[in-house]
Formats: sequence, structure tokens, C-alpha cells
Amino acid sequence: MPMSQGLDERSPEERQEPPDRERERERSRETDEQEARLRTVRGMLEAEEADGLAALLADWHAGDVAHLIEQSDAEERGRLVALLRPSFDAEILAYLPLDLRDEVVALLNPKELAAAVAELDTDDAVDVIQDLDDEAQQAILENLPADTRALVEEGLTFPESSAGRLMSREFISVPQFWTVGKLVDHLRAEAGNEDSALPEQFYDIFVVDPMHRVIGAVPLSRVMRSKRTVRLMDILTKDIHSFSATADQEEVARSFRRYGLVSAPVVDRAGRLIGVVTVDDVVDVIEEEAEEDMLRLGGVGEGDLYRAVLDTTKSRFSWLAINLVTAIVASVVIGFFEATIAQVVALAVLMPIVASMGGNAGTQTLTVAVRALATRELSEANAARVIGKEMLVGTANGALFALLAGGIAYLWFRDPLIGLVIGIAMIVNMMCAGLFGALIPFALHRMKIDPAVASSVFLTTVTDVVGFLAFLGLASLILL
Amino acid sequence: MPMSQGLDERSPEERQEPPDRERERERSRETDEQEARLRTVRGMLEAEEADGLAALLADWHAGDVAHLIEQSDAEERGRLVALLRPSFDAEILAYLPLDLRDEVVALLNPKELAAAVAELDTDDAVDVIQDLDDEAQQAILENLPADTRALVEEGLTFPESSAGRLMSREFISVPQFWTVGKLVDHLRAEAGNEDSALPEQFYDIFVVDPMHRVIGAVPLSRVMRSKRTVRLMDILTKDIHSFSATADQEEVARSFRRYGLVSAPVVDRAGRLIGVVTVDDVVDVIEEEAEEDMLRLGGVGEGDLYRAVLDTTKSRFSWLAINLVTAIVASVVIGFFEATIAQVVALAVLMPIVASMGGNAGTQTLTVAVRALATRELSEANAARVIGKEMLVGTANGALFALLAGGIAYLWFRDPLIGLVIGIAMIVNMMCAGLFGALIPFALHRMKIDPAVASSVFLTTVTDVVGFLAFLGLASLILL
Repeated sequence: MPMSQGLDERSPEERQEPPDRERERERSRETDEQEARLRTVRGMLEAEEADGLAALLADWHAGDVAHLIEQSDAEERGRLVALLRPSFDAEILAYLPLDLRDEVVALLNPKELAAAVAELDTDDAVDVIQDLDDEAQQAILENLPADTRALVEEGLTFPESSAGRLMSREFISVPQFWTVGKLVDHLRAEAGNEDSALPEQFYDIFVVDPMHRVIGAVPLSRVMRSKRTVRLMDILTKDIHSFSATADQEEVARSFRRYGLVSAPVVDRAGRLIGVVTVDDVVDVIEEEAEEDMLRLGGVGEGDLYRAVLDTTKSRFSWLAINLVTAIVASVVIGFFEATIAQVVALAVLMPIVASMGGNAGTQTLTVAVRALATRELSEANAARVIGKEMLVGTANGALFALLAGGIAYLWFRDPLIGLVIGIAMIVNMMCAGLFGALIPFALHRMKIDPAVASSVFLTTVTDVVGFLAFLGLASLILL
Repeated sequence: MPMSQGLDERSPEERQEPPDRERERERSRETDEQEARLRTVRGMLEAEEADGLAALLADWHAGDVAHLIEQSDAEERGRLVALLRPSFDAEILAYLPLDLRDEVVALLNPKELAAAVAELDTDDAVDVIQDLDDEAQQAILENLPADTRALVEEGLTFPESSAGRLMSREFISVPQFWTVGKLVDHLRAEAGNEDSALPEQFYDIFVVDPMHRVIGAVPLSRVMRSKRTVRLMDILTKDIHSFSATADQEEVARSFRRYGLVSAPVVDRAGRLIGVVTVDDVVDVIEEEAEEDMLRLGGVGEGDLYRAVLDTTKSRFSWLAINLVTAIVASVVIGFFEATIAQVVALAVLMPIVASMGGNAGTQTLTVAVRALATRELSEANAARVIGKEMLVGTANGALFALLAGGIAYLWFRDPLIGLVIGIAMIVNMMCAGLFGALIPFALHRMKIDPAVASSVFLTTVTDVVGFLAFLGLASLILL
């Protein structure tokens, strides 16, 4: 009975409702529970049942408390934090988005914060402290116990978004001559020791040589399966993936994904073990990096759901200002053809179609390319092939939409030449959209500029200018 | 020595180079290694050193082989798969993007595939098989050993993208009266047993009652710290997160992230343990879900880096066709004002500016909203607040850009009224962009339509129509 692969005896039909209905219910159950919890908390906040609420929240997981803070408005947040202050769990901060983290930190005093942060593992402590402003950082550091402070300060010396910032300093490393029995005895003895630096959770035992260089790792599940007399040397995995402390977190995340890792050692330049990155931190990185690219492509620097109106307005202004320049460039191009438009007003009516289709086709290519660059699916090795393919796809769809748009323009304005002009312009612009949609992000990537940030401005400029130029230029040649 | 929190004795200055230079080197080292490996393999492929290459690849991690296949062109892929065929590792398939998976499967015969799939854990087997076409699925299933086949077929009865598809059927579950000592002895005995269903990797021991319902879990690291006489009942975590087999994988991923889980039980409706979801599968889900939203926002259904030109052209056509309709609607709006434009051609020159700024401001809001809906940061509880805020931000930026664009238009065409018209139109359109940029995705979400797929078409229609209507309408009122 213990080891179960247990086949369910019921038939699939009995076991399962129509999937959609069942899943709809799942989803609404989740939402209902959240709403209900939120209503309870709000009710208690309004009824000023401070003690009851504090007791309730003390039982919640830090991730749930963080979610509650996210869902509240600024006034409620203030009252919630006031309630949580007496025994604030710093892990809540680790689960909050950056903007809200600053807001909550501002509501606590440095002593309280330091006491809370001192309870965290070093990786979480560094994670919480690194994004605060200098003053808040200093205030917390000064109030930390000396040994924790030293580790956290050291963590902060590593570059932002590096493995060094991500790693925990608490890990299990043992010499290679140990047996499974000695390891188990040691762990049991340490567990009883108050001052032990034993991490709360760990997944691998790292085996090191006398210089503290990593030789290999033994997953806990393998330790548990092995007899006491087995030497760690005989069951360790030698071919493990380790990272330098300065390695970029994206690289770490890619390796975790590519090799299905759960924890991995971080080493200094001499190969000595200095920390461990675990998958829970990597999950956050994967989510953040994907989110970052998506937000940047949409012209937003970072998530600003919680920022005040003024801050959000400011943060979005610069992107819009760049786009104003692009739009004016497009207008200047149109301006060249004022005389043509004055003669055939239909051109003014039709011209946004060509530019818009080019913009959309280009955005499709751009999105695929930016994503593929981020996951390293697109690289020097296949760039020429991908760029060529995108140009062909753009041209092919350009030809299809040339027929469609040309036909519609002809029927609308009863002029076959207008149909011809919009058709040719469509093919030219969509070909350029495919070409530049792939070329621009790749070129930016080679120049070490984040393609997610800058690509779409360049692309829009190309598709607008080419679109208006081709359409109005051809019109002035053919129609007049 | 064993338990190390080892502070590095060197000062931070010694330990660390200027971060940018160091990281640049990291990044290029990673790229260099990849390129070098790829060159080696290509050289061997061209020199037809089949045996040497097969031996080389046999030592590689399945994730690396998959990456190599990704980076190759169709012809190279054919030759690589031919080399790998004799002892094909089905795990390679699990690491490949869907499109490439189909291509590689088509190159193998069902017997070979079934033999390879039989070696996988059930979760990976289901993952590999589920996306193949019916014929390939059937051919593989027929060639699987009976017990594996039953488990895989059962896995396939769960809805797509559900916890049931994600879970592994291999896990450790033991009765609550067991002690740590009994558990360890049992695992050691099972490890020697050839037929054992012991999973290769596991992180938690699940404790079940006689009805096989989950009572709680004990992480391995806690088992390792506990003495042999300790009862599992006394060290188990009762408050664990379990999922029904029909739960959506997004919900599973959110919980793993929110609670920092490494593995979690999947239960049937009676609460009985039927499988376990582990974090490596969840990492893929998180990456895929974020990617999906990003690609959908960009108007691409799924990653199509590896598809042929014709397929890609087809898959992008429908999105572009919808956009053509949107563009034509905008043109119709412009058409209402043909007479106005004929009198003041400057309007044709300036009109794309208002529409374009609205589109960009709306996209900013839309991106933030779609992302926040996906992560559940945006919900009923704070929707009204977010929508109101976005409208204010749009109006505020609208006012700023009204001044800028109005000033430029005035200077360009020497007509203060044109400046006034573009200014008012800008405020109106950017206010609508903020309002609808937040409202549209939220409304679609409430109607159970994926906001990432449909939002941007609606939004563009709004910002184009309002942009042209406001600008040209005001112009015909004020200028004529």
C-alpha cells in the first residue's frame, strides 16, 4: 500500500464531468473564496475588530497576507499594516510587488523592520532590502545583528539581478569521505542545536573538497534511498550546474528550466561554494523576466498598478513623448504630399489602412522575435533564416491583403487605379514590416540593448514612414 | 566545517570586478560555449562522423540536445534525429517546443517512440503524448506496456492544461502511524527492488489515512533532521495546498508561486491522493502562460518560429484580417469628413497624430491590465479603482500632450485654431484610451474571454474612431 501508483477503479466517465463546466466551477470557487476572505477582512476592519483581525491574519501564509494588501486600497493598507506591526513577518515583503513594498516599509520603523528581516533567510533578506531606497536600507542594516548584517551586506555587493543576489547563504556542505549514516547523524544533531545554521528547507547535499570547492551534489531523495554505510562519494552526481555569483539571473533561470533543477550551487572564482540558489527564487525570476518583456513591449517600464496617478503619469510620459516624435515624422511624410491629397481626398481616407496593417504585421513578427531572443531560441545560428522567413511571410500576407484592400478601395471609390496604388503599397509595407520586425530586435540584441524596450518605436517609425510614403508616393505618380 | 555560512575573507573590492564588465563576460561566455558546441556538432555532421557524434550526444543532457535541435535547420534536424534514433531519449521531446515536437515525432516510428516514452515518468509521458495528433497518439499507446498505457490513458482523460495532465503518478505516500525509522527502512528496501514504483526524484512524503485521503506532508529535509523514533504524525504539515485533478494549471502555478511550493498533492473528489505535481512542471507552466499572454497581445496565436512560411502566413492572416476591418472602420469615419479635409488639407497631415497617441496610451494601460488580470492582482475588488486611475492618468497625459501637439501644430500651420482642435481631441482620445484600455480587458475577463486575445482589437477601434472623430469633428465645427 505505501508506494502507490493507484489506478482509480471508476471509469473515466464516472470520474469526470464535462471539463469546461468543472473548470468553470474551479475558477469561480477560487475567486469566491478570495472574495469571501476579503469581505471578512474588510468587515472586521470597518468594525474595528483589531484584535480579532490580528489573530486571524497571524494564521495566514505570508503570501496570502501580501495578496490581501495588494487587493486593498491605500487607506485599508495603512490600517492593515498598523495591525500587523507588532509582530511583522518580513516574508510578507518578499511576496509584495516592489511599489507596494516601498509603501509598506515606509509605514514601519527601522527597528521593527530590522527585527523582522533578521528572521529571514539571507536570500529573502537581500531580496527585501535591495530595492529599498538608500536611507531605508541603511536604517535596517544598522539595526540587524552583526553576523546577519555582514552576510546581507555582502549579498548587496553583488550586481543587481545576479546569482549572488538570489542565493541563500544557508546550505549543507559536507566532505566527500562522509557516509550516509554520518550525514544523517550530523543533521539530527544539528537540528537540536539552537545556533545551527541549518536551512529550513533544502533539497541537495553539496559535497566539497578540503578547499571547499564543489565536487558534486546528492539529492535528498537519493540519500533517503541509500543505506547508512554508503559513501556520499559513491552516490554523488558530479556533472552539476554551478553558477558564478555574478552570473545574470536570466542565465540561472534558463539553466534551471533547461535542466529541471531544484537547487544549484553558487561558487566564487576559485570554485568554492559560497551559496545556493533554490527553485522558489528562480520561479520568481522567470515570472518577472517574462512580465518585464511583456510590459516593456507595451511601453510600460514596470508594473505600476499601485502607483499614484502622478507617478504613473510621469513614468508613462517619456514613452509617449518618443511616440509623439514618431507620429510627427509620419505627419511630415504626409506633409510632402499635401498637394496630392488636396486633389484626391480619397487618399486621406485610405492612407491609415496601409500604415496600420504594416504596424500590425510588424508587431506580430516583433513579438515572436523578442520572445525568442529572451529564451535564446533565436540566436546568431538561426537569425538569417528567421529574418528571411519573416520577410517572406510579410510579403505573402501583403499580397493577400493587397487583393482585399485593393478590391475594397476600388469598390468604394470606383477607381481601379486607387485599388492598384493601395495594393502595391500594402505589399511593400508588409514586406518591410516582416523584415524590420525581425531585424530590429536582433540588431538591438547584438548591440546589447534590450530589444523589448526599444524595438517597437523603431518598427512603428518604419511601418508609418514606408506606409505613407509608398501609398502617397505611388498615388502622386500613378493618379495625377 | 560542514555547516557553512562561510564569510569570504576578501574584501568586496577584491572579490568583485566592475559589475558590467564581469557580466558582459558571463553572457558572452555562455554564448561562446553554445556557439562552439554548435560548430563542433555541425562540423561532425558535415564530416559524416556519425558514430563519434552519436557517442558525443549520448552524454548530453536531454535539455541540451533539445536546444541543439532547436538551433538547427530542417535538414540538420533530420540528420540529428536519424543519429539519435537507435536509442532515442523521449525526454528530449519534453524539452522541445510543440511545433518541433511534431516534426521530430514524424521522423521516428511508433515502436521506437513507445519504447522511449515507456522510460519516462507518467507526467512527462502524458506531456509528450497529449499534443501529438490522434494517429500518432494511438500508435504510441498501442506499443506501450499495459500498465504504463493505462496510466497514460487515464492522464489523457483529464482536461487539457489541468493539474491531472501535469501530475506524476509516482509518489511516496505512507500511513500516519509510521515512524521516521520505518519510512527510511522502507525506502532503502524499495530502492533495491527492481519493480519498485519509487520516483526518481521526490521532495515530500505524503501521509494518508486508511482511505488514502491526504492528511499532510513532510518535506524530506525535515525527515532527515528527525530521529528514527519520531512519528510522521508529529512532524507533518497539515495545512498543505492540494489540487483537484481538474484544477486549471494556471491556478496550480499561482499557488506554487504564492506559497513557494516544491511539490503538491493532486486529489480526487473524495480527497484521495492520485498524483503529485512538482515544481519543474510548474516552471514550464509559468513560462508558457506568460509567453502565451505576450504572444497573444502581439497578435500571434502561439510561437511559430519553427513553422513553415505557409503555415505561419495562414496563422497570422486571421488576426490581420480583423485589423483590416478595424482600419476600414477608421477610414469610414474619416470619409464622413472628406469635405472638411478638402478645405483644410492640414487636417489630413495632422490626424494620424491623435489616433496614434491614443493607441499608444491605450496599449500601455491594456498591457498593465492584462498582466494584472493574469496574476490576479487585478480583480473585482480593485477594478473600479484601477479603471478610474487609468482614466485620470490618460487625461493627465492627454493634457500634457495637448499642449505639446497643439503648440507644434500651431507653429507648423500658423493657425491657433488648428492647435486648439488637436489639443482638445488629444485630451478626449487619451482619456478614452485610459478608460477603455482598463475597461475592455476587465469586461472580457468577466465574460470568460481571454483578454490577451481580444482586447487590443477593441481598443484600437476605440482609439482610432474617437481620435479621428474628435479631431475632424471639432475641426469641422471650429475651423469652417
